[in-house]
Amino acid sequence: MERIIIDMDEVIADPMGEMIEWYRREHGGDVDFGKMDGSWLKGFPEKDQAMVLERLKSPGFFRHLPVMEDSQDVLRELNKNYEVFIVSAAMEFPNSLKDKLEWLADHFPFLNWRQIALTGSKDLVFGDYMIDDHVKNLKGFKGKPYMYTAVHNLGVTGYDRIGNWKEAAKIFLK
Amino acid sequence: MERIIIDMDEVIADPMGEMIEWYRREHGGDVDFGKMDGSWLKGFPEKDQAMVLERLKSPGFFRHLPVMEDSQDVLRELNKNYEVFIVSAAMEFPNSLKDKLEWLADHFPFLNWRQIALTGSKDLVFGDYMIDDHVKNLKGFKGKPYMYTAVHNLGVTGYDRIGNWKEAAKIFLK
Repeated sequence: MERIIIDMDEVIADPMGEMIEWYRREHGGDVDFGKMDGSWLKGFPEKDQAMVLERLKSPGFFRHLPVMEDSQDVLRELNKNYEVFIVSAAMEFPNSLKDKLEWLADHFPFLNWRQIALTGSKDLVFGDYMIDDHVKNLKGFKGKPYMYTAVHNLGVTGYDRIGNWKEAAKIFLK
Repeated sequence: MERIIIDMDEVIADPMGEMIEWYRREHGGDVDFGKMDGSWLKGFPEKDQAMVLERLKSPGFFRHLPVMEDSQDVLRELNKNYEVFIVSAAMEFPNSLKDKLEWLADHFPFLNWRQIALTGSKDLVFGDYMIDDHVKNLKGFKGKPYMYTAVHNLGVTGYDRIGNWKEAAKIFLK
């Protein structure tokens, strides 16, 4: 069975969407999507970036995130045809670890804990395919990398792209 | 630089030692080292195994564990000569995740969060050497595996062994 390594944030979970919605609702502010090259945090006004980062690091934030559209249906099928691993580079955010595990158990109950890894670096893992939104994770990968399109990576070239989970199904579930 | 993947429990941290000490102190009981083949939990009297497992799964247990003798000195030197990753199969114990990260920051401050991975399975990681106390982790490894000797693996054959960190230094730091 071929192995697919799938990222969490901006790929199956939507921390950016959750943060923008909260920012609009609680602070009446808005973001500039044109300034997000490299990191969506940079789209928030500079004066509020520390506050946004603090929320990102706080317990519970990653526990209640929206699920990316169609990701549940497609991962359920992938899981029957591939060896699926969820790998999230989460060590920078110690409070996110348990939250991420519980979020996965809630929304992807067909995956078990053996299929989950929370790492500092993704240089450590190997497989046939990797779906991720960051060059830093894809660039050292020995298998076939796919850039999952997110607003912060629109300027990146040199990777085959997946724009949404319906597209992923067309590639991997023929 | 060659990559060494190092386990935590029974290799650089001592959950078994901590549990036995607590069991003797708080419950006046003792363990049978002759019954630990495969798992040290089996050395506790059967009537108390559920209680021991509950403590193992509770928040804080992995935060305050003894450090294996000489592991700090040897890992500090390994870290200058190899690409060191700490990989712990911890997903079965969600409460251990943050505890393990904080324990490492306390006792191995020369390692950074990029060098740490908490996984469900170790089939996912690759490197040149792996030091681990469990067959399940070593058996799929593509590099050179070393069995770190623990009371529960004394009956295992077929692996080169490391009995303590002074021996590891002799192998890796010539």
